[in-house]
Amino acid sequence: MTVTAPTGFEAAGIAAGIKRSGALDLALIVNRGPSNAAAAVFTSNRAKANPILWSQQVIADGQVGAVVLNSGGANCFTGPEGFQVTHQTAEAAAAALGISSGDVLVCSTGLIGEQLDGEVVQEGVLSAAARLSAEGGDDAARAIMTTDTHPKTVVVEGDGWRVGGIAKGAGMLAPGLATMLVVLTTDADVPAEALDAALRAATRVTFDRLDSDGCMSTNDQVTLMASGASGITPDAVAFAASVTEACRSLARRLQEDAEGASHDITIEVRGAVSEDDAVEVGRSVARNNLFKAAIFGNDPNWGRVLAAIGTTQAPFDPYLVDVSMNGVRVCHAGRPDAPRDLVDLTPRATHVLIELHAGEASATILTNDLTHDYVHENSAYAS
Amino acid sequence: MTVTAPTGFEAAGIAAGIKRSGALDLALIVNRGPSNAAAAVFTSNRAKANPILWSQQVIADGQVGAVVLNSGGANCFTGPEGFQVTHQTAEAAAAALGISSGDVLVCSTGLIGEQLDGEVVQEGVLSAAARLSAEGGDDAARAIMTTDTHPKTVVVEGDGWRVGGIAKGAGMLAPGLATMLVVLTTDADVPAEALDAALRAATRVTFDRLDSDGCMSTNDQVTLMASGASGITPDAVAFAASVTEACRSLARRLQEDAEGASHDITIEVRGAVSEDDAVEVGRSVARNNLFKAAIFGNDPNWGRVLAAIGTTQAPFDPYLVDVSMNGVRVCHAGRPDAPRDLVDLTPRATHVLIELHAGEASATILTNDLTHDYVHENSAYAS
Repeated sequence: MTVTAPTGFEAAGIAAGIKRSGALDLALIVNRGPSNAAAAVFTSNRAKANPILWSQQVIADGQVGAVVLNSGGANCFTGPEGFQVTHQTAEAAAAALGISSGDVLVCSTGLIGEQLDGEVVQEGVLSAAARLSAEGGDDAARAIMTTDTHPKTVVVEGDGWRVGGIAKGAGMLAPGLATMLVVLTTDADVPAEALDAALRAATRVTFDRLDSDGCMSTNDQVTLMASGASGITPDAVAFAASVTEACRSLARRLQEDAEGASHDITIEVRGAVSEDDAVEVGRSVARNNLFKAAIFGNDPNWGRVLAAIGTTQAPFDPYLVDVSMNGVRVCHAGRPDAPRDLVDLTPRATHVLIELHAGEASATILTNDLTHDYVHENSAYAS
Repeated sequence: MTVTAPTGFEAAGIAAGIKRSGALDLALIVNRGPSNAAAAVFTSNRAKANPILWSQQVIADGQVGAVVLNSGGANCFTGPEGFQVTHQTAEAAAAALGISSGDVLVCSTGLIGEQLDGEVVQEGVLSAAARLSAEGGDDAARAIMTTDTHPKTVVVEGDGWRVGGIAKGAGMLAPGLATMLVVLTTDADVPAEALDAALRAATRVTFDRLDSDGCMSTNDQVTLMASGASGITPDAVAFAASVTEACRSLARRLQEDAEGASHDITIEVRGAVSEDDAVEVGRSVARNNLFKAAIFGNDPNWGRVLAAIGTTQAPFDPYLVDVSMNGVRVCHAGRPDAPRDLVDLTPRATHVLIELHAGEASATILTNDLTHDYVHENSAYAS
């Protein structure tokens, strides 16, 4: 049920013909109200796709009636023609739904630097609008997939209200945000400012800490829409916790389906002076190709962990650090500890614990290994 | 002839038994004078190997009589025992040569986190000292190899003097410095301060701009020793130019033999506000796995170039940028230009030109593609 699990939402996912394969490639998600409060966060990449430039304007007033999402093309670095395609997409949805185009978010994903066919997209929007239903969430989840191997969805139950969501990920998965499109819906009655606060708090500790391949996308967008259809305004803390739970679940789904990955690596950094320091240390490991290749080879090469964290500015003494892999402490105080042969890296789930012994703060970064399949998929993506 | 091409130097390369394979694994390079002026630069990684900690003290007075280099073990994160092995190595060389151990640099390369056998290394030093010769440079170049497929050497002819050098590279090739050991020698008569200035100026625009895989080593060391045996003190500018030429040549050799690489990529950034900005922009592309995998696949995916440079802080407008690949301008003013099919990426030498149109500064970064062989070599290195 995904985004249509909360009451007040309808969705559709159709094959508009953007993808040559004929697969589903266009999703429409509509908030029937009574409220149309919304919040969104966007990629921090300065190179932003046309749908990002459009959606940043739409979200400014905290009111959103619908989201159009397409796969099969990122509509990024496509110039004024590309922006016009995004604008026309919103206009087409607005006309079909009887709302203002200024209340229609647009999200795109696919190859950068290729024009989308505006007519194909507009016809797709009309077709999707004609198929909207309260059971359409699953099709919407399928329509936004690119190299994802399966749709990613979540439903979190509140006390008389729900949070539902869909996500696509796969490649260009890195912070601020991970490469992805996410739509979350809720039938809780929450004003736009509170949605924004809950969404930013949630993404900061979930999607922003997923760093699969160090590559930041031009098209990331996470949207949260509230219909208010449950008639319930939840406690702010409980609501934020549910949004965070939904985001955390989807972030794990993205990690598990990252392009070519054979290990899902959880890098836990403890004993940092600040949370930002812990994030910096964890990210330096998540972005180290030698470490990532070693994990692919089931090699507990802790020297590469230390070589990576030595490149950070975070305050700690590299010669006091402990490193454990899957529960075995292989480095203690900057020296070899348990034999590396004791570490079993054959399970897909991999845990690396880094104890800095410099303070009390901690953070966890999610990443993946560097594999032959990653190289293969990303050397052949455009063709 | 390499490091023994300049007069006043002797060298040896031997199989000390550090490598299980029985390959050459220990080099000794001795400056017979009359001068023993020297300079060195070291990794900027905060996690520094024991030989780095030792050598930083040795170089402080600008006097060096000999360098001992071993492959087969990095002697990094090996604690006080590891530091003692480095110290004993210098003591053994000093005793054999009749000089002070405080004038002996030590360099190590290999796996991090494993102890070197001090007795094996010391016996190796004695054996190498017994085989020193003015023809020993080539053996020294072979003895420092790890995953390098061939030795890397250079000789630059000055006016009555020479600069010679050897280098090892292969993996963990990233800035400040690239993972490598380099020894340069000259028979010019140049004091330590001038050597230091020439070496820093040279490494800043050569080794520091080689970023093969984004991974910074714990063991990098570049040493320059002057014997003064030619009796000539060259013009400072001419001498610095020769040192830079030697470093540039060796940096190219390192790039061409980087682990698993199938393309040598030159990323030229023009039109930046400052040289530092140009370096930041070039490095962001050099470290982008998606770009590197695309080049491996002969895919001129310029969208990944723009997505990468959008993550920098350098002042420029992403929507005004031009990108050319191997002479074909595929992106003009942030929009598609020539068809990507026109770009031939089959040659190993690959040129990416990024015109920022923001200023007059430029810089060139050297990198490699991300290949199956890179993943294979680095997932199996420890075993």
